[in-house]
Amino acid sequence: MITANLSINRGRLENQLKRLAQFGKNEEGGIDRTTFTQAELEAREWLIEQFKAIKLKVKVDEAANIWATREGKKTLPHIVFGSHIDSVPNGGMYDGALGVLISLEIMTRLHEIRKETRHPFTCVSFSAEEPNPFGLSTFGSRIVTKRLRAHDIKEVKNQEGLSLESALNAAGGDFDHIERAQIDPKTIAAFLELHIEQGKRLERNQIPIGVVTSITGIYREKIRIIGEANHAGTTMMNDRKDALTTSSECILLLESICRDHPSDEVVGTIGELHIKPNAANIIPEEVELTVEIRGKTEEEIRQVVSSWECALKRVFQNRKHMTLERHVFLNQPPSPMDTAVISAIESAAGQLSYKFMHLGSMAGHDATHMATITRSGMIFVPSRKGKSHCPDEFTSMDDIEIAANTMLHTLLLLDQSLNDKEDL
Amino acid sequence: MITANLSINRGRLENQLKRLAQFGKNEEGGIDRTTFTQAELEAREWLIEQFKAIKLKVKVDEAANIWATREGKKTLPHIVFGSHIDSVPNGGMYDGALGVLISLEIMTRLHEIRKETRHPFTCVSFSAEEPNPFGLSTFGSRIVTKRLRAHDIKEVKNQEGLSLESALNAAGGDFDHIERAQIDPKTIAAFLELHIEQGKRLERNQIPIGVVTSITGIYREKIRIIGEANHAGTTMMNDRKDALTTSSECILLLESICRDHPSDEVVGTIGELHIKPNAANIIPEEVELTVEIRGKTEEEIRQVVSSWECALKRVFQNRKHMTLERHVFLNQPPSPMDTAVISAIESAAGQLSYKFMHLGSMAGHDATHMATITRSGMIFVPSRKGKSHCPDEFTSMDDIEIAANTMLHTLLLLDQSLNDKEDL
Repeated sequence: MITANLSINRGRLENQLKRLAQFGKNEEGGIDRTTFTQAELEAREWLIEQFKAIKLKVKVDEAANIWATREGKKTLPHIVFGSHIDSVPNGGMYDGALGVLISLEIMTRLHEIRKETRHPFTCVSFSAEEPNPFGLSTFGSRIVTKRLRAHDIKEVKNQEGLSLESALNAAGGDFDHIERAQIDPKTIAAFLELHIEQGKRLERNQIPIGVVTSITGIYREKIRIIGEANHAGTTMMNDRKDALTTSSECILLLESICRDHPSDEVVGTIGELHIKPNAANIIPEEVELTVEIRGKTEEEIRQVVSSWECALKRVFQNRKHMTLERHVFLNQPPSPMDTAVISAIESAAGQLSYKFMHLGSMAGHDATHMATITRSGMIFVPSRKGKSHCPDEFTSMDDIEIAANTMLHTLLLLDQSLNDKEDL
Repeated sequence: MITANLSINRGRLENQLKRLAQFGKNEEGGIDRTTFTQAELEAREWLIEQFKAIKLKVKVDEAANIWATREGKKTLPHIVFGSHIDSVPNGGMYDGALGVLISLEIMTRLHEIRKETRHPFTCVSFSAEEPNPFGLSTFGSRIVTKRLRAHDIKEVKNQEGLSLESALNAAGGDFDHIERAQIDPKTIAAFLELHIEQGKRLERNQIPIGVVTSITGIYREKIRIIGEANHAGTTMMNDRKDALTTSSECILLLESICRDHPSDEVVGTIGELHIKPNAANIIPEEVELTVEIRGKTEEEIRQVVSSWECALKRVFQNRKHMTLERHVFLNQPPSPMDTAVISAIESAAGQLSYKFMHLGSMAGHDATHMATITRSGMIFVPSRKGKSHCPDEFTSMDDIEIAANTMLHTLLLLDQSLNDKEDL
């Protein structure tokens, strides 16, 4: 049973949110705290100070992930929770930061009341979760879960020619021994991440807590559609091999396949397009599209990809003179969240009388990778108008308080219910 | 009646074609002879030498157009004929060059046989006909016909920052007195241009001579389609404001409107597209398209534009959350060719027993502008596979000989049939 009178300190949490938001704040009110920039390095320093102030044992690993541990009564594997503090360029103050600061507040509260837990509790702030100039999102969590290896990052540089090696080492990492950051799964009992929803489902349903059942799978391919450049005046309509009109058919078919799918959590996007030669009076010769399909189950993704393939076949049967090249470069399956963690979140919310609903996470998260080595779960909080990755990101303090208390009690329930790693 | 035994010298013409093609020839076999480049300046020098060798009076005007005159028996307005010698980057050896070299060969032949004409005959090579780094195609013919004025070109520079002023002056022009190049219409009796078709109609019909009845009108507008950038994972299909899927509908509607139009000589093209932010995992916020519509009559263009406007209305009625901005920036009406010149070409071809057909020119030409000040006409020769603006441009010497003889006799017929300017 929950000690319902144990709750987080809302004022302190709000204050810390405002303080962290000073690092990288720009004139528009957005946050420029891309991985390994000066603003992010300063935010790291600040965060480490906060952990040390409540006597946590801080470790920065070879991938520059920050771990802050509070010992437990027993020698058990750690219960880990956290998120990330880097942002996209001109991002908001909640994406990632909220999960880290609620974790910090939970640790602070436990410290204040001298709460003893069975398991060691560890708060983590992962490096480089967001898309970044090194082209490596969820960098920190992929390193610790062995999904990214030393040889994958050997020559990585940003567009200005700065190597990942020097950027990482400046943040406290150790590029040459990066694989030492890999985690032995035996040392972790569970992972819990709290994050803004980045969608409108909680807001629309007026429910403060999302219990994530699975994190979206992501399928991506590049397609090249090749026709023939020709004079836009002298080439009659029937003689054309127009790569742009052909692309337009494909784009609309992907849209209608995803719209018609019975699941709301199936989405398909063509966000990137490159066209050659791109001149008003020349028929487009070549268009390259990046196609992305997401769904909360492998089955959903398989259905959409299969309809998409049929659609492509029809388009190129009608436009026989056109050439299609395809290159599938990502097919990351969905990550179902752990049932024990899901139950703990439900119990905590239920006992605190908060409404919750089940959701698939349509964005990727560090929890996607953590789920490959330990029982993992996620709590979502509402995002006003579904906005994220922009200065307009917003979650109310009422919702934040509800989520933080739910997370606190979820962790305490897990601490009680999870047995030693060997027994699971 | 035609002196059928008067014909051009095929071997000499072929030789001159090969010589001019040396200027700007690149490794692919294409021609790099963009306006005012070193290669083009050298080609100009060479052309002037050829004119001088047959005792023509050469004048380079303020727009750097080259005029070469053979006096007539009477003080009559000039019969002018020619084309241009500049090329697109990596273009072919026939576009423009063929018209100038056939004109040169005609002048050479007339010189050899000491033919006396009633009118003065003037061969012209216009400056900067092709799309060029100064953004001014058909520059020379627009200057002489007052369709481009001094104030239009005041600050023009290419992307490297070279001013049109210095490029033009280096080619023999006079930027400060550019309007002195304007022609008094009274001084010209007619203009005739020979050019490659840049389409497949002559080849398909196996006819060597195209008698151009009109030069296409060109309508261009830029449209901006504005939606909302959003996360490609967390934004459900029904919540999207996707500028690319909306654009795709517009692109396909323009294609079908033009395909369905009864005239073959109606074409619509979207060749230029700019998309923001252009990232795989972000829903496109904004797409800008350049729409081009061509037709051989004003009525045809009006019909297509009107169907296009209805189509846009339908698209944006179904996608109410999207915004459309339109900017029409060109609406150049078609130029009908002169009936007296058309008759002269038909008579010449008929009397020489060459097959001919009527065509609309779907590309713009210097003749478009000349038609605003004098009786104008065009002769088209077949382009193999309709290709132009590429190294594959090709017209056979058989077709070239037929066209050159037709042009020679057309000019002689005009010399006979056209009265003094005052009587016309």
